[in-house]
Amino acid sequence: MNCKDVIEKISRGTTEIINKEGLEKKLLYSQEKGVPLRVKAGFDPTAPDIHLGHVILLRKLRQFQDLGCQIDFLVGDFTALVGDPTGKNKLRPAIDSKYIRNNAKTYTDQAFKILDKNKTNVVFNGDWLQRLQPSTILALTARSTVAQMLARNDFKERFESGVEISIMEFLYPLLQGFDSYFLRTDIELGGNDQRFNLLMGRQLQEALREDKIFIAEVKNILSDLGRDVEAENWKPSQEAQVVIMTPLLEGLDGVQKMSKSLGNYIGINDSSNEIFGKIMSISDELMWRYFQLLTDEDLDSVKFLHPKEAKKVLAKNIIMQFNSEEE
Amino acid sequence: MNCKDVIEKISRGTTEIINKEGLEKKLLYSQEKGVPLRVKAGFDPTAPDIHLGHVILLRKLRQFQDLGCQIDFLVGDFTALVGDPTGKNKLRPAIDSKYIRNNAKTYTDQAFKILDKNKTNVVFNGDWLQRLQPSTILALTARSTVAQMLARNDFKERFESGVEISIMEFLYPLLQGFDSYFLRTDIELGGNDQRFNLLMGRQLQEALREDKIFIAEVKNILSDLGRDVEAENWKPSQEAQVVIMTPLLEGLDGVQKMSKSLGNYIGINDSSNEIFGKIMSISDELMWRYFQLLTDEDLDSVKFLHPKEAKKVLAKNIIMQFNSEEE
Repeated sequence: MNCKDVIEKISRGTTEIINKEGLEKKLLYSQEKGVPLRVKAGFDPTAPDIHLGHVILLRKLRQFQDLGCQIDFLVGDFTALVGDPTGKNKLRPAIDSKYIRNNAKTYTDQAFKILDKNKTNVVFNGDWLQRLQPSTILALTARSTVAQMLARNDFKERFESGVEISIMEFLYPLLQGFDSYFLRTDIELGGNDQRFNLLMGRQLQEALREDKIFIAEVKNILSDLGRDVEAENWKPSQEAQVVIMTPLLEGLDGVQKMSKSLGNYIGINDSSNEIFGKIMSISDELMWRYFQLLTDEDLDSVKFLHPKEAKKVLAKNIIMQFNSEEE
Repeated sequence: MNCKDVIEKISRGTTEIINKEGLEKKLLYSQEKGVPLRVKAGFDPTAPDIHLGHVILLRKLRQFQDLGCQIDFLVGDFTALVGDPTGKNKLRPAIDSKYIRNNAKTYTDQAFKILDKNKTNVVFNGDWLQRLQPSTILALTARSTVAQMLARNDFKERFESGVEISIMEFLYPLLQGFDSYFLRTDIELGGNDQRFNLLMGRQLQEALREDKIFIAEVKNILSDLGRDVEAENWKPSQEAQVVIMTPLLEGLDGVQKMSKSLGNYIGINDSSNEIFGKIMSISDELMWRYFQLLTDEDLDSVKFLHPKEAKKVLAKNIIMQFNSEEE
């Protein structure tokens, strides 16, 4: 496939790519040098049920996987160690690493219905973040400003309406950005609500490229993790990561965001019958959106079908995706 | 001395004490149990020249020392490791621990003109802060909010006038507060520009009193430092620290804050002749203020002196303080 076709395929259903020129450059470089691109997406280990809303991102990862890219499936276990920042006067829940890693297993087992397990690199950011020196964390926080953080939409709204923002929440974007620096991520995928955090990865990759203290710190951590630092000769990425954002999926009601708690979801572990029934119940409009975001079907060819027929095609397509091993 | 007299002596020249009831309670408790109170003051190791502005605080520490309190002379070496947060795009200066500890030596040598060296506990906060686990630092940042930080006068002004505030600066008060928690500080002294940071110590001592994770973390660090944790049986302070604030001293011009860079200062290493000459040059008004802040003289008895005579008394008094070993 040529580069243009790849970018067209990758772009389907995305809300924003920053930026396409960078993506093309990376694809060409990778092709030329025979070095696979590193593609990262982060997942929250405390919410272990995967539904169609997550599948959009997983499918996008799978596309990159099929192109020969290295997939870093990042489990954000580090922050889960700390717990809910809003419970300022409560004891933090004692979520230990073992519990989180078990949860992550449940999560990846579901994700591997979409991803090729053997080609997926599952990583836990606690492995490196929990090894950072305090002085390095402090140095990281010197790389962003209060004004930058408060420009983020949700922070801005909360600040202006007097809803508490913990200082801890200002550290999350920086740590997520450090993940990209550490993993030398070429492309990061995320929901469009993650825009700020995804861009922080770009910012930090640029800012820390020549920083000797950060480079030494990464090498120390790699050595701590038993990696052959000499042989590996870790160097920061020369180009900032490309950021690809996917939309939040509407649930079966067609209005609210798909979520388990709202009951408007299709779970990746639902039975084929359940999925079929749920898809047949959605609106025609939502069906076209699901076609676009959750299948590779040529929209021009399905649009002539009777809606009821089209829904059957959609349902079968999704069921097939979830049960590819059983077929 | 009874408690009332002690508090009167301590109060001389302070701008604020939070709070006097707490101070009285601590003094009584200490007297009753025969346990010395722990009194802390922090110093910046990157500015190694002590002048009269610092002497106010050192004299206050000495008063506590003479009362039998334990003095923790805290050198803030941890943040110096990281360097200037405003140089966002520059390499941080490589200030290493050795350099800082040498600097600190210069500093304490001067401070011991006021303090009793043998009864002063010099501590470096890098010893414990650099041993904090990243997850503990994150948990610490969950204990304050953006709104709380931005309520601090100088942050508020800078934020409103668009002057950059690094996220790192939001961590300083939390780390300073953690110092008080770690040291189980009973009384912290500081300039009145430090009010916010000093109060953060109170807040964190209250907030973390029952926090098992923080208690375990402190014990780990103590053990790491070679202390006998079993025997010591570290427990957080039951009462928040009392905060005692001293004013910033006007320089020889009587207007601007005393500082080396403005040249309006009397250094603790100045010769007796220099000090004498400088004191004779100040205004009468400033002389009375120096009397109050820098001596134990009974103001009622000196106020009848001719200003020129009074200045001589003041100069001799200060020279005596700086040269007590030589007398």
